[in-house]
Amino acid sequence: MLSATINRGKKWRKYKVKRQEREADLAGCQVQDEFWSYFQRLVTDEVIPYQEKILNDEIPGVEKSHALENFRIAAGDTSGEFYGMVFQDSDVAKWLEAVAYSLQVKPDSDLEARADAVIDTIGRAQQEDGYLNTYFTVKEPEHRWQNLLECHELYCAGHMMEAAAAYYETTGKDKLLTIMCRMADHIDARFGVGKMEGIPGHEEVELGLLRLYRATGEVRYRRLSEYFINQRGKNPDFFKEEAQKRDWRHFAMRAEDVAYNQSHLPVREQSTAVGHSVRAMYLYTAMADLAGETGDQELFDACVRLWEDTTNRQMYVTGGIGSTVHGEAFTKDYDLPNDTIYAETCASIGLVFFARKMLEISPSARFADVMERCLYNGVLSGMQHDGKRFFYVNPLEVIPGLSGEQAEYAHVIPKRPQWYACACCPPNVARLLPSLGRYAWGENADTIYSHLFVGGSYVSQAAGGMRVTVTSEYLQKGKIVYTMHPATQKACTLAVHIPGWCRKYTICVAGELLESADIREGYCYIRRNWKEGETVELQLELKPRRVYANTAVREDEGCVALMRGPLVYCLEEVDNGKELYKIRIPRQADLHVEEKKDPIIGDYAQLQLEGVRMITSEALYSDEPPKAESCKVRAVPYYLWGNRSEGEMRVWIHE
Amino acid sequence: MLSATINRGKKWRKYKVKRQEREADLAGCQVQDEFWSYFQRLVTDEVIPYQEKILNDEIPGVEKSHALENFRIAAGDTSGEFYGMVFQDSDVAKWLEAVAYSLQVKPDSDLEARADAVIDTIGRAQQEDGYLNTYFTVKEPEHRWQNLLECHELYCAGHMMEAAAAYYETTGKDKLLTIMCRMADHIDARFGVGKMEGIPGHEEVELGLLRLYRATGEVRYRRLSEYFINQRGKNPDFFKEEAQKRDWRHFAMRAEDVAYNQSHLPVREQSTAVGHSVRAMYLYTAMADLAGETGDQELFDACVRLWEDTTNRQMYVTGGIGSTVHGEAFTKDYDLPNDTIYAETCASIGLVFFARKMLEISPSARFADVMERCLYNGVLSGMQHDGKRFFYVNPLEVIPGLSGEQAEYAHVIPKRPQWYACACCPPNVARLLPSLGRYAWGENADTIYSHLFVGGSYVSQAAGGMRVTVTSEYLQKGKIVYTMHPATQKACTLAVHIPGWCRKYTICVAGELLESADIREGYCYIRRNWKEGETVELQLELKPRRVYANTAVREDEGCVALMRGPLVYCLEEVDNGKELYKIRIPRQADLHVEEKKDPIIGDYAQLQLEGVRMITSEALYSDEPPKAESCKVRAVPYYLWGNRSEGEMRVWIHE
Repeated sequence: MLSATINRGKKWRKYKVKRQEREADLAGCQVQDEFWSYFQRLVTDEVIPYQEKILNDEIPGVEKSHALENFRIAAGDTSGEFYGMVFQDSDVAKWLEAVAYSLQVKPDSDLEARADAVIDTIGRAQQEDGYLNTYFTVKEPEHRWQNLLECHELYCAGHMMEAAAAYYETTGKDKLLTIMCRMADHIDARFGVGKMEGIPGHEEVELGLLRLYRATGEVRYRRLSEYFINQRGKNPDFFKEEAQKRDWRHFAMRAEDVAYNQSHLPVREQSTAVGHSVRAMYLYTAMADLAGETGDQELFDACVRLWEDTTNRQMYVTGGIGSTVHGEAFTKDYDLPNDTIYAETCASIGLVFFARKMLEISPSARFADVMERCLYNGVLSGMQHDGKRFFYVNPLEVIPGLSGEQAEYAHVIPKRPQWYACACCPPNVARLLPSLGRYAWGENADTIYSHLFVGGSYVSQAAGGMRVTVTSEYLQKGKIVYTMHPATQKACTLAVHIPGWCRKYTICVAGELLESADIREGYCYIRRNWKEGETVELQLELKPRRVYANTAVREDEGCVALMRGPLVYCLEEVDNGKELYKIRIPRQADLHVEEKKDPIIGDYAQLQLEGVRMITSEALYSDEPPKAESCKVRAVPYYLWGNRSEGEMRVWIHE
Repeated sequence: MLSATINRGKKWRKYKVKRQEREADLAGCQVQDEFWSYFQRLVTDEVIPYQEKILNDEIPGVEKSHALENFRIAAGDTSGEFYGMVFQDSDVAKWLEAVAYSLQVKPDSDLEARADAVIDTIGRAQQEDGYLNTYFTVKEPEHRWQNLLECHELYCAGHMMEAAAAYYETTGKDKLLTIMCRMADHIDARFGVGKMEGIPGHEEVELGLLRLYRATGEVRYRRLSEYFINQRGKNPDFFKEEAQKRDWRHFAMRAEDVAYNQSHLPVREQSTAVGHSVRAMYLYTAMADLAGETGDQELFDACVRLWEDTTNRQMYVTGGIGSTVHGEAFTKDYDLPNDTIYAETCASIGLVFFARKMLEISPSARFADVMERCLYNGVLSGMQHDGKRFFYVNPLEVIPGLSGEQAEYAHVIPKRPQWYACACCPPNVARLLPSLGRYAWGENADTIYSHLFVGGSYVSQAAGGMRVTVTSEYLQKGKIVYTMHPATQKACTLAVHIPGWCRKYTICVAGELLESADIREGYCYIRRNWKEGETVELQLELKPRRVYANTAVREDEGCVALMRGPLVYCLEEVDNGKELYKIRIPRQADLHVEEKKDPIIGDYAQLQLEGVRMITSEALYSDEPPKAESCKVRAVPYYLWGNRSEGEMRVWIHE
């Protein structure tokens, strides 16, 4: 057995900034995985059609969307008033991006035709000068580009650019790409040094422009992204000055709160994750993406500092980020309340994006571990198991009666709603899951990276078209088998991420047990002249385990969380009764795995142990230490919580 | 040794409602006590003159008060605009009430003359029809009595009635009493069944009217109080209907939030403490006072239910109440967060009032214990040790950097401010402390009750004028000696409250150790034909001890508080370093008492023990249980916290 002696702490190799690998082309990825295929099918078969209906206002009793109607009105196809958030367009953009990936997973000519029709409408909604935004086109054409702080024009453009690039990549159709190039040209004509020196209030356009650059090769788009990134925080008074120039406002955002949108410092000087956590993630992802493109060491160093602060001092065990509802924001290092938490689904998705871009520069387990933590926990928890309800907030402790009711906990809703007035999270889940292959695989000239264990196959461009097939029993047995199908006789490397949670594992290459291995930064590099059908078998010791938070996390003091593999577990009222905070887990108690079948959440591994439940006495305060009675404790994977019934839930259990 | 086998739980004797005792006449009380005399002197020598200067706007750099100037303007003595809260008058009322008690503690003819002058001004500010309120007189005369929900006219009147009765009782001067009888008559002419069926948005007038009734014997005032109490909640739509009748509002209070001001149910049907906690306490106190006056069993039963809910399910270990800043309110049973707490000083003072009125009907330790808990902890903590700064919010956990800064904790200021725009708490402390004798002593025809241990003397009207002198080393040694000085030869009873915290004690009567005693409901009744100079010596075992919260209190799970006698202790950063949440106290560690002298907080008993401090490792989450190193833990009385420096503080310590 090999021991995971991976140092996931301070002493990481300092990479010179150069892209070490690139995320996989989705065309080469095929997912056939007991766990993930369920979620991909859910997105293709349920979520995307459901969201299409919502965007078309065809589902009664749900928050009205009106997002597609806004485009039709802007296009002149129908008449009416704009309805919804100022960033309502982005719901359509994210849906289109999800459709693009979905068509890759499961071709669907009807869906593609409907998406094409939406793109046609978008084209008609575009203005002569390339401008595209239904809110301002329909409602306030005279107010274009006057309120970057609040009005999300660049944000919506960025999402549509991502959709355009994705749709082009997976369908080969360039209509939306052309539309968004016109919009990018429009933006480029307006913004930049010596032009309007503005920056977006909500970062995203930086990401969209980089994707547009890669899809088209147009270097102006990369430079425009670079401008927006570098300009950020150079003039912390920008939003104040902007606000002084106009006599209207949209929300009640405070232009002075520059940390809220990360414009408090030039990005290269930032070291602490602050402000709105989704904005922060989109910015940091763009910074990392740009650093990979340009080899900008200073920018990457800032990314590393921000990564460390985010993931080593401000991240929940589920991969959730954003400790407060006030500004949907980061607070202070190690301030991680479980019950008043925000941990927006979008923020964990943003952290996945950030991790993926960091991996490109530095294929290290410290990035892959966090990406995995988010995906299996704080991202999946955002969606009901039937794909029809969604969480915005992903708490680690829920107590109906307080949660969702009492002011401090009003945002912590104990049950996933069907849709939201501010519907950013559901389409974000929908675009992430069908593009999972890009996160699972990466490559460079002669190395194939396996970042996540996802069954199926991957055809690389590396090593002359090596095809790797994978069977994964990762969650069930900790076993993953790669089978190699080389197209040429050249040697190449398979680099497999050894998950940070794993203490012991074995690797068999072509049937031979490895006695030692080339492990660097949590990746096992196996270089061979692969022969057809040779396998790499990875067997991870999959024991349920106790996890402790750093003692600097005040809210988790004296508590323990349960995990198995990458899955964080939680206690639910439906299995354990009410008042979960009265349950204590002895440090020595055996953790037993029991396979369960459930009509709602399907097959899953329950953790069971003998714990105690504190008995409630009569007095409010007493000199007598509280008494306890033994009880059976049952834990379920966190991502499944809230599916079977509405009730209490708790991740951190008293020890 | 006698054991305290007092059942402080369910099985209390059900009293028929009849006043068992009455609070002492202040004229008979003299306080000469190492602990309490300091605070009384602080009020007479520092707080009252300081507050007088503030009310006169003579202290620079402090929140402007303008309260006396408002009266001068209303009186026509000066011209100007009203400034301050709509209830600014009540600051003057509470100050006058404090002055009244202060003159009893320490006669001061200059102060009395200045108070008389203030009363003269008040008289001139009163309108022809008896109406008295400077806000409406100066600023919005057309809006009188239109907004009972928000505008505190009845509240201010109630406070001034209390001041009038107090000033009359201690000085014999009836000018303010006459003024307030005219105002009461004005109110009586307007409100009542068949008249305007209104109730105050903030209860207080009910208490003022009962005091006015007792001072004057005018039964109409009692009936008017009774009307306001009984009317409350009879029409839960009252405030909504009131709001519909006017086209203006003062604050942004929601008339629908009927629980906020306890008008959600008729008072006799209420069982759960809800809403704004100060309002609740003033209401419940008035209910108990009225029940004692009228023998209203149903009303008293409601008081008992509300008492049980407040003190047995919603009270902090310090006697603080009000778990949330949102509405300064109660939340749910056992929801007692320590860091986002409200626990307003006024609310604990209100709980002292409520306890005192319950004691009159039912002299039980369950009331006296809570009264003592509040006084020694959550009330005294409201004032800086020099009497010049005050807390509104009394937290049980403070972490500068979060507390006072991060939105959830913004109200939890780590340092006492000098004054507040809403300055209810400082004058409430000032009126409570000099009237301590009323809470310490009570009597009926032939029984003298000692509810609190306060050195000095008490001359009762009971038993023909028995004088009891007391020397108290309660906090220092747990020893209290009563010396009896009878004026007649009739037998009478001394009833001594045995504090609930005490497990073992001895009582010597006239030098004889009692082998058994007549203990009822936590009071030891000693009946004798007392001879001059006979003593009752009470020796309480004064060991530092650990206290546990009911396991239903989620926030205190796994934690312990330290107490000695009635004092709750806390850990402060100045003694223990930062990150107090990392400290754990072994269950078996000896608690050692060390007498300390400090230039700022004077003499106090520090608790010391060997604890451990959890070590912070590098990783945010780890499979390794956290390690600890031993450390010396030092605890100081809670009421003294925040005096020596600004830093962390914590009451509940991990065990």
